Amino acid sequence: MKISHIEHLGIAVESIEKALPYYENVLGLKCYNIEVVEDQKVKTAFLKAGDTKIELLEPTSPESTIAKFIEKRGEGIHHLAFAVEDGVANALAEAEGKGIRLIDKAPRLGAEGLHIAFLHPKSTIGVLTELCEK
Amino acid sequence: MKISHIEHLGIAVESIEKALPYYENVLGLKCYNIEVVEDQKVKTAFLKAGDTKIELLEPTSPESTIAKFIEKRGEGIHHLAFAVEDGVANALAEAEGKGIRLIDKAPRLGAEGLHIAFLHPKSTIGVLTELCEK
Repeated sequence: MKISHIEHLGIAVESIEKALPYYENVLGLKCYNIEVVEDQKVKTAFLKAGDTKIELLEPTSPESTIAKFIEKRGEGIHHLAFAVEDGVANALAEAEGKGIRLIDKAPRLGAEGLHIAFLHPKSTIGVLTELCEK
Repeated sequence: MKISHIEHLGIAVESIEKALPYYENVLGLKCYNIEVVEDQKVKTAFLKAGDTKIELLEPTSPESTIAKFIEKRGEGIHHLAFAVEDGVANALAEAEGKGIRLIDKAPRLGAEGLHIAFLHPKSTIGVLTELCEK
């Protein structure tokens, strides 16, 4: 597959309101959007560092996978998302053909209208990995 | 502080030799350098995705902080490094002035000759954060 850059980094936080002062006032990054993704049960704040977005992920329900992640491992980096240039469906087919376990068998719609799909961390050496394309 | 981009992402792996086929053959990234950082007790493989480097970190000793990280949490993303434009020493002073706990009180020399310093994850909402500059 052809990766152009790291599209975003998903970071699990208990509270966007409490996390933003660090990202904005200490690191000097700007939050340009806050969005609720209902089916993922998360609220997301977007900031930008160069070409890469930082997505702060706050659970909106205890059943959210982000809530479970925080309960198990604490706040921290949750996933790594690469922008692919040749289509997410093609990238998934290629990855599966090379023995990678997929979480999503087909692309679905993610935050900011991106086509996204996740690879399973068992196949990606511990890093929950997302592929995405506009 | 002024962050230009994400300089690199440090990913703890048990074996660079075993991890590289995923990064190179599945993701299509290229490893352009492998370096041993003696005082950190790690071997590092560098790949590039857009402006951001991926540093695979393999412990060379059981006393390495990377070995301890893997023992406790498994393989996965270890730290996030931002490139700062106004000098690491200035960025550290600013962060400390804003109440951030520092791991390094002054910049030190890291891999690839960068000036680097770490902020403490207790102050950075769970993300071990590095600041660096050429």
